[in-house]
Amino acid sequence: PDPQDLDLEILETVMRQLDASRMREDLRELSREPHLSSSPRDEALVQLLLQRWRDPVSGLDAAEAPQYEVLLSFPSQEQPNLVEVVGPTGDILHTCRQREEDLTGEQGGPDVVPPYAAYGPPGTPQGLLVYANQGTEEDFKELQIRGIKLEGTIALTRYGGAGRGAKAVNAAKHGVAGVLVYTDPADINDGLSLPNETFPNSWHLPPSGVERGSYYEYFGDPLTPYLPAKPSSFRLDLTNVSGFPPIPTQPIGFQDAKDLLCNLNGTSALATWQGALGCDYKLGPGFRADGDFSADSQVKVSVYNRLELRNSSNVLGIIRGAVEPDRYVLYGNHRDSWVHGAVDPSSGTAVLLEVSRVLGTLLKKGTWRPRRSLVLASWGAEEFGLIGSTEFTEEFFSKLQERTVAYINVDISVFANATLRVQGTPPVQSVVFSATKEIRSPGTGDLSIYDNWIQYFNRSSPVYGIVPSLGSLGAGSDYAPFIHFLGISSMDIAYTYDRSKTSARIYPTYHTAFDTFDYVDKFLDPGFSSHQAVARTAGSVLLRLSDSFFLPLNVSDYSETLRSFLQAAQQDLGALLEQHGISLGPLVTAVEKFEAAAEALGQHISALQKGSPDTLQVRMLNDQLMLLERSFLNPRAFPEERYYSHVLWAPRTGSTVTFPGLANACSTAKDTDPGSEAWAEVQRQLSIVVAALEGAAATLRPVADL
Amino acid sequence: PDPQDLDLEILETVMRQLDASRMREDLRELSREPHLSSSPRDEALVQLLLQRWRDPVSGLDAAEAPQYEVLLSFPSQEQPNLVEVVGPTGDILHTCRQREEDLTGEQGGPDVVPPYAAYGPPGTPQGLLVYANQGTEEDFKELQIRGIKLEGTIALTRYGGAGRGAKAVNAAKHGVAGVLVYTDPADINDGLSLPNETFPNSWHLPPSGVERGSYYEYFGDPLTPYLPAKPSSFRLDLTNVSGFPPIPTQPIGFQDAKDLLCNLNGTSALATWQGALGCDYKLGPGFRADGDFSADSQVKVSVYNRLELRNSSNVLGIIRGAVEPDRYVLYGNHRDSWVHGAVDPSSGTAVLLEVSRVLGTLLKKGTWRPRRSLVLASWGAEEFGLIGSTEFTEEFFSKLQERTVAYINVDISVFANATLRVQGTPPVQSVVFSATKEIRSPGTGDLSIYDNWIQYFNRSSPVYGIVPSLGSLGAGSDYAPFIHFLGISSMDIAYTYDRSKTSARIYPTYHTAFDTFDYVDKFLDPGFSSHQAVARTAGSVLLRLSDSFFLPLNVSDYSETLRSFLQAAQQDLGALLEQHGISLGPLVTAVEKFEAAAEALGQHISALQKGSPDTLQVRMLNDQLMLLERSFLNPRAFPEERYYSHVLWAPRTGSTVTFPGLANACSTAKDTDPGSEAWAEVQRQLSIVVAALEGAAATLRPVADL
Ligand SMILES: [Ca+2]
Ligand SMILES: [Ca+2]
Ligand SMILES: [Zn+2]
Ligand SMILES: [Zn+2]
Ligand SMILES: [Zn+2]
Ligand SMILES: [Zn+2]
Repeated sequence: PDPQDLDLEILETVMRQLDASRMREDLRELSREPHLSSSPRDEALVQLLLQRWRDPVSGLDAAEAPQYEVLLSFPSQEQPNLVEVVGPTGDILHTCRQREEDLTGEQGGPDVVPPYAAYGPPGTPQGLLVYANQGTEEDFKELQIRGIKLEGTIALTRYGGAGRGAKAVNAAKHGVAGVLVYTDPADINDGLSLPNETFPNSWHLPPSGVERGSYYEYFGDPLTPYLPAKPSSFRLDLTNVSGFPPIPTQPIGFQDAKDLLCNLNGTSALATWQGALGCDYKLGPGFRADGDFSADSQVKVSVYNRLELRNSSNVLGIIRGAVEPDRYVLYGNHRDSWVHGAVDPSSGTAVLLEVSRVLGTLLKKGTWRPRRSLVLASWGAEEFGLIGSTEFTEEFFSKLQERTVAYINVDISVFANATLRVQGTPPVQSVVFSATKEIRSPGTGDLSIYDNWIQYFNRSSPVYGIVPSLGSLGAGSDYAPFIHFLGISSMDIAYTYDRSKTSARIYPTYHTAFDTFDYVDKFLDPGFSSHQAVARTAGSVLLRLSDSFFLPLNVSDYSETLRSFLQAAQQDLGALLEQHGISLGPLVTAVEKFEAAAEALGQHISALQKGSPDTLQVRMLNDQLMLLERSFLNPRAFPEERYYSHVLWAPRTGSTVTFPGLANACSTAKDTDPGSEAWAEVQRQLSIVVAALEGAAATLRPVADL
Repeated sequence: PDPQDLDLEILETVMRQLDASRMREDLRELSREPHLSSSPRDEALVQLLLQRWRDPVSGLDAAEAPQYEVLLSFPSQEQPNLVEVVGPTGDILHTCRQREEDLTGEQGGPDVVPPYAAYGPPGTPQGLLVYANQGTEEDFKELQIRGIKLEGTIALTRYGGAGRGAKAVNAAKHGVAGVLVYTDPADINDGLSLPNETFPNSWHLPPSGVERGSYYEYFGDPLTPYLPAKPSSFRLDLTNVSGFPPIPTQPIGFQDAKDLLCNLNGTSALATWQGALGCDYKLGPGFRADGDFSADSQVKVSVYNRLELRNSSNVLGIIRGAVEPDRYVLYGNHRDSWVHGAVDPSSGTAVLLEVSRVLGTLLKKGTWRPRRSLVLASWGAEEFGLIGSTEFTEEFFSKLQERTVAYINVDISVFANATLRVQGTPPVQSVVFSATKEIRSPGTGDLSIYDNWIQYFNRSSPVYGIVPSLGSLGAGSDYAPFIHFLGISSMDIAYTYDRSKTSARIYPTYHTAFDTFDYVDKFLDPGFSSHQAVARTAGSVLLRLSDSFFLPLNVSDYSETLRSFLQAAQQDLGALLEQHGISLGPLVTAVEKFEAAAEALGQHISALQKGSPDTLQVRMLNDQLMLLERSFLNPRAFPEERYYSHVLWAPRTGSTVTFPGLANACSTAKDTDPGSEAWAEVQRQLSIVVAALEGAAATLRPVADL
């Protein structure tokens, strides 16, 4: 009988039944074998998921596994990629490892894909080695300023600073012929690098470990932008594909990097460029005469990667809503890994399976059915660029935009055991707070997850005082197409580090063959209590979104964000804009209108909640809440930024946390003449964000206001 | 008490109360003075509308008149535009009229804007005259083939065939320096041209009558594409504006055209180029020696038009919905005219005022309140390019897209007295049929409007047999931004000609100073019974859309359209596509999926209607019906076609009635090499329409299907 509302007893039951040991067992199975996208084991896991979600005792209402035909990139099995030091007479002085060292018996199997840079072009460049730090534009400019001739060189770079593909893009602009990428122990191991200090003796990255990854600059299937990658779909000709690295690129371990880097010739690199390999990092070009290689030796990078059209599956499951089946709460994670992927993504998949088991069991028993529909998803080919989720949003664009309440992503569920970490847009903040206040934090006595979280990530909110701070959503996992392309309120949930204890970029075995079950079981989350904490958080948020009569999306929390963006724009861009006769006045007015509309809507909600509103009244209100995020979309705002239509969360090039279109346009315009096209673009971007905010405010005002 | 449903007694009351004589009186007032966009009289009419819609006895719940600052174009008052014949020694041999003849005392006033081509650039080109028929690309090619040197000439063209602006665009490509446009009596007067045969002695166009019009190629404010034209909005630099005629252009009457055309030198024009001016139309260049002008005489076109930023008002009124206030039925017409505009647009505004009076009276009496909200609109600056309506859709894009059930447009309500004529997308067909079957047709005894209509416009439907045929929506009035930019199911309603009795392009005094109250009262609709028929049709459709529990949008009528588009594509493009290895198979499958989903949804509706569905169930269904049209939008489908996002109704260049993107791409590709970009675009367009149809089908399937 409506109003069917969130049932706290059901919620409590779900929280209680989410079982750490089951996640441990699921993780063991999920990570038993490497399951690279579209591999036989990846498809076997599709069947495992289907079986679980179709289970008569603990399954969902329905499950399916649709496929897309997508362009992936693999190293050649016949001709392995190779990095060599070649002496002046052509003799091979050093060969880098072609696979990681088999330290646990899991790194040697035939299904362990050798380290490679996915989508890096094949080629065999050879040249003098230079050290280019993180391969940013600034790094290459620094080398140029120092008079180092880059043309025809091989650039050794380390992970961090720039995106993977960006290193090769920046390098190629300077005539560099090939790029090597490694992980410096300073960036991942808090400086440690010896075998006895690293996995399997600790959580640190072993010397032979190599981070694999996609070097494609966009996301989605590269051949079918904005179209679902069905077999019959139009595909771009390869010559028209942009976003692939322009030159051969290969990742190596720090053991090999050390052999190269510590033998370099030339002047010393800046202090900020130095790492933890135990030598003074020089810039090159080429090797020093008194090192391991003769002075004229070159580095040869042989890359034989191949592009292949492959079938990749998503697995979708649904629990049909009892009252509002046409409202969807989506919860997903990718399934594909680079190797065993115990942490990435299987720690998230174990959580997904456990949440689905508990909910499915209640469903099949007849104890519970959600108010709204729940859609669970196991995405394919995320590692190659969020491909499965992106194709899904392309295929069901209209339906998802019209009906989706929110998207929850749990990819890596546990980076470390210290605290919750949530990224999301403002409307999801309150439901995450509500959920986490009611769940006990593991290993901290009586503290709630919320109370623990606030100690690690917090900010001072003008409205609420000190609260945990949510991060913003980039494009690091499958939430990207949902928030940026569809404008669906989204979040990403994980447990993570105590940043005072480690400065590791990410958990050390990320995307290596050492990301295994034992790694999680021994080092990352012994006892799986952090997995349980994430499962409870995701499960509680999911239930609150699916079952609450009033949607728990607090749109007025956007007011705070907009106000802070505005203040940052005023502080950091205001003077520059004023010099060019551009007033932020209309933006101030727009933010004020939004604040007023959000405030008034809040009062309307309170009044409704005190009365006995009928179903339709609440549905109308909920539609306003659900669709607010959509009002920030403008598919014409950033025509060059594929899939980025959300005018508040598109990529920013600068450090000011403000409206991205405005900030980026200012940064482009600032060194141009007053009448330039770049200054016109600043004004266009200002009008775009003003129109979006005014339009958003209009959707929050009473629905029958003119 | 819900379900609040359509009340047939209320409907009957509304039908009965819609009063022909009140429309006659309103029309008299509306057309009393010229009310060019943004003129004082236009603003006075804004106040008239506000007063009516705020009337305590017969007004709406609220009314407002927001303004936009938009770029309009006017002739100079100080330097009137001029067309002259200049002899070889510089003497003026002939001067065309600068205003229409004052035949009724209404053509001479200071507020009668002289004939001009809005947005035509200023300039004073002079050259030999050529006759270029309708100024199409083919027409200029024909002249070229005939060896006529076009460089530096003045081209005399007649209305029809190509859009106004297109004539100048085509001419400029051939080096033509200026363009004249006139209305041939063959095209507008069924050949008649003498003063005693024309207004005020008949409905025909007098010899001095000149059709004014906008020569801008796009719609919306030219300076603010995709942004609302608020004072603070970013505006394009004039140098970046596209779509204005490239060369000076001036319209003239057929009296002056005759003086020019009947004195031309050169060979005779083709038979299809001949008109009714009573001479053999020659092509030029220049005048014949034995005519009224000496052989070397040239024509000088002096245009002094000026672009001006002006404030233009929309008037918006609302009746708040009792049950679903967040669902809007929009009904609008423009208010601005070229001169008195008795027919265009005041015949529509009289209908709008009468419908609002009758509904407002029921509302204020407390007799009735609609289930959904009704929004009435009087748009500004339509004549310059649908500007007021377009800016409105830009400002409230999100809100309107989320909530609008349908848009009803009644611009010119009565072209003539013979029959109803409706343009619209398939979902509105059934509600128009239901409405018109219940209304008696004027002057035809007991016939319903439907039964009369079917005699003039009909087609054989595979589903229904012979039915009245709806036209499709181009961009001829304010429905354009609603259907093309927002994807809102739209329609345009009018009474019109018996095509067996006249071949006039449009009613003869269109956009002239002879479009006056007496013209309507004496010739177009004496007794105003056609006005009443249109008011009843629009009113009934409006009430059915606003008040029916089940939305009367029959989405399955799209199946018939899609099937016919598919068959046309197979017949006219299939062989060509097959030659290039492109299969229509995926499109066939997509159409079949749509048909199946629509069919199943139809059965679901029937089942619901037989039961006692609750409000929420019907709301969910209605959302599917309302939003179907949105699923055909793809803002990235036609990046060059401003505002055209609807993949089914974007402009087609060819004559095959099929999917426009596919047809246009084929027409571009057909003479290119197999591997060309143009053939890739064909495949892209095919995939775009397939994805749209599959996406649309997905929105029609049961809402909790995967
Ligand atoms: Ca795609
Ligand atoms: Ca505009
Ligand atoms: Zn991941
Ligand atoms: Zn990953
Ligand atoms: Zn009109
Ligand atoms: Zn008009």
